[in-house]
Amino acid sequence: MLGFNFSFMMAEVIGAKGITERGIEGARSKALAAISELKQKKRAEMGWLDLPWQDTSAVKEQAARLRDFENFLLLGIGGSALGPKCVLEALSPLHNLKRDKHKTPGVFIYDNVDPSTLESILSVIDIEKTAVNVISKSGGTAETISAFMIIFEKLAGRKENFVLTTDPEKGDLRKLASGGMASLPVPPGVGGRYSVLSPVGLLLAELIGMDSGELLRGARDIHEKCMSEDVLKNPALLFAVLVYLMQSLEGRGMDVLFPYSDRLRAFSEWFCQLWAESLGKNGLGLTPYPSVGTTDQHSQVQLWMEGPADKVIVFMRVEDYGADFRIPDVFVEYANMAFLRGHGLSDLIKAEEEATELALAKAGRPNMTITVPGIDAYHLGQMFHFFEIATALTGFLLGINPFDQPSVEEGKRLTFGLMGKKGFEDKKREVEEARAGKTFLVL
Amino acid sequence: MLGFNFSFMMAEVIGAKGITERGIEGARSKALAAISELKQKKRAEMGWLDLPWQDTSAVKEQAARLRDFENFLLLGIGGSALGPKCVLEALSPLHNLKRDKHKTPGVFIYDNVDPSTLESILSVIDIEKTAVNVISKSGGTAETISAFMIIFEKLAGRKENFVLTTDPEKGDLRKLASGGMASLPVPPGVGGRYSVLSPVGLLLAELIGMDSGELLRGARDIHEKCMSEDVLKNPALLFAVLVYLMQSLEGRGMDVLFPYSDRLRAFSEWFCQLWAESLGKNGLGLTPYPSVGTTDQHSQVQLWMEGPADKVIVFMRVEDYGADFRIPDVFVEYANMAFLRGHGLSDLIKAEEEATELALAKAGRPNMTITVPGIDAYHLGQMFHFFEIATALTGFLLGINPFDQPSVEEGKRLTFGLMGKKGFEDKKREVEEARAGKTFLVL
Repeated sequence: MLGFNFSFMMAEVIGAKGITERGIEGARSKALAAISELKQKKRAEMGWLDLPWQDTSAVKEQAARLRDFENFLLLGIGGSALGPKCVLEALSPLHNLKRDKHKTPGVFIYDNVDPSTLESILSVIDIEKTAVNVISKSGGTAETISAFMIIFEKLAGRKENFVLTTDPEKGDLRKLASGGMASLPVPPGVGGRYSVLSPVGLLLAELIGMDSGELLRGARDIHEKCMSEDVLKNPALLFAVLVYLMQSLEGRGMDVLFPYSDRLRAFSEWFCQLWAESLGKNGLGLTPYPSVGTTDQHSQVQLWMEGPADKVIVFMRVEDYGADFRIPDVFVEYANMAFLRGHGLSDLIKAEEEATELALAKAGRPNMTITVPGIDAYHLGQMFHFFEIATALTGFLLGINPFDQPSVEEGKRLTFGLMGKKGFEDKKREVEEARAGKTFLVL
Repeated sequence: MLGFNFSFMMAEVIGAKGITERGIEGARSKALAAISELKQKKRAEMGWLDLPWQDTSAVKEQAARLRDFENFLLLGIGGSALGPKCVLEALSPLHNLKRDKHKTPGVFIYDNVDPSTLESILSVIDIEKTAVNVISKSGGTAETISAFMIIFEKLAGRKENFVLTTDPEKGDLRKLASGGMASLPVPPGVGGRYSVLSPVGLLLAELIGMDSGELLRGARDIHEKCMSEDVLKNPALLFAVLVYLMQSLEGRGMDVLFPYSDRLRAFSEWFCQLWAESLGKNGLGLTPYPSVGTTDQHSQVQLWMEGPADKVIVFMRVEDYGADFRIPDVFVEYANMAFLRGHGLSDLIKAEEEATELALAKAGRPNMTITVPGIDAYHLGQMFHFFEIATALTGFLLGINPFDQPSVEEGKRLTFGLMGKKGFEDKKREVEEARAGKTFLVL
């Protein structure tokens, strides 16, 4: 089970910059209201809370059908790509280079409309031997649909290569599915950024040889704990209360996710999308920051230690890396090398993690630590479910709806105008007026 | 040549949230002092300004020697890894999957001490057929040295597989080089994060088949423009003045780098290290944020548009992607798809970039745009040199030394204590006392 150490958030340990037990007590009624909002699932967008109990047979069936394809190409953007990317990088690092060993398809995730990337991907795969998973809940995401149209033509419409992951009832992709393309549902009440434990993430997990049921079992096992009304025993609620208090009392509006594992780099990005899009509203919100230890000790820690006092650092400490290397007895004549001898590489990464926590705490920089027993499907499922619940609770505490994203619409409308979509002629004019207006250039 | 459009930073275009021409005028004396500090190169750490004129013959010689190795493994962390990673991803995307076509070595960058990553890498390469580039300016970076010791033993000390990139005179790696291992210099006055145009980045460029001279030619071609004392004609100085004014007048202390290109994802990370470690000091500093368009429109833009008014967005717009795909005439019966037909994918990505600029501007969110003619070695060299100069100038404007990183030392000392290095026994005790003290846990 994940653990949660919040010592270095507390005034009793780090002094005046920390939160007091009385401060947590003071937030209790807000916390109770938040957990009650979660448990009652009053909003339509809270279907993701039920995902851990879903039936995975349709996912397993599709995975069995697609497993013999040479490659698997996922078309999606935002949550539709970040969740699967997380699963891939955490559970099967360097997947495409280890393919012969796995006997599973190579995996490519195209989550942009960069033509150069598509050219690169198409130059290393045989598209006819590629299964294509098109993921868009609405069925109308312009980036995903454009790529789908291009690939569909390249495959001369061979339906058997495709699986469409989309709303079970609405949208253009669902209509295409009714016309004979295989499909999987994004269940009702599951928005893109809360969808990783739906078929969006589960299909890829199965295809790379994992049991998607383990992801769900992990989520189920942490669920009840995250529903407790006792703030000090509910890690997700406590996490939410602590970041909320750090913002409202101390003006710390940035939350850095700092996993000490290369395999959790994409997890850090997944968290940032979840946190940013859920909480950035009404002139409010907390800004996430993606980091990876030890690497970013040599990149970001200087700023976290000594820059503006506006951040909370969330460490993720891995207990068992599943591999280790002993640093050998070489270069014994050099003092900068000799002390490393005999230690495991995992001793070093864990020592650096602990040292960085303490160094930040000594500098009055609050931080907390999620401990992760190991990086496998079971614990990854716990991590997904924990952070989704913590995000929703933080939204409720801040009085922000964590399930919409109203401000991305204007950019879409202006894009529609530029691309000549009917009904958006005024948006095209707006861009043209901006182009014709005053500009400031250095050439 | 790179272009710079700062219209959406200006009050005349975006209204009250913008900077006035008078505001820029008001910063002129500070700007002149900053450019003078740069031009006089008074500080010892400013050797990187001369890198564009370096002799590349030693780099080319090492590249020729190493080109026939099957793989190239780079050991480094921070700037020693991010610069090379940038070069690789920008100039040779999916490099390891396209190897047969390139006839160049596969490339692996190990920039952490995660044992799981090292195991993955060693499982897909034959270490005896691998050239190993150990990069550490000081020659004593614990993470890099640990990996070096492990690999050195696995190679049974075969010196011919190694090239050490380090200080030309000092440190343990330099001593090893004197003992018969090939080496390249990190020239004097070139810190890790300003080192990409030294042999640190150039060797990798040559190995993947690029002409490192093109990187330097790009940097040379933008150099003079970035040395001008005319704020409105010097893009680097203007960039620095604008972010400085946005922080000091508007409280916007975060700068988001938002290139619309997958190939510049690592560039975004490289910039963040440069910006964070150079400027995060004395309780001050600007916080960078790494993004990639269009992808992060579905991740971060909601927060940039409607969250706290504390950010400046720096777009990077690519003019020529070097590839394109026409969106074909399929699915004509669906309105969400039909309007995309006939456009190129590059039309769509450029439209989204322009639309997002305007949407942010309309919401009173200042942003500016670097235009990049194409992603090749020449323009990448310009980008590196431009951002290094802009970072140094911003430091001078803020009164911050952009070349040191004093606050990463305490974490290192605590790590040394935990790892049993002589002289750091008190640091070990400090960690043990923290462990034994009051803790707050949720299990």
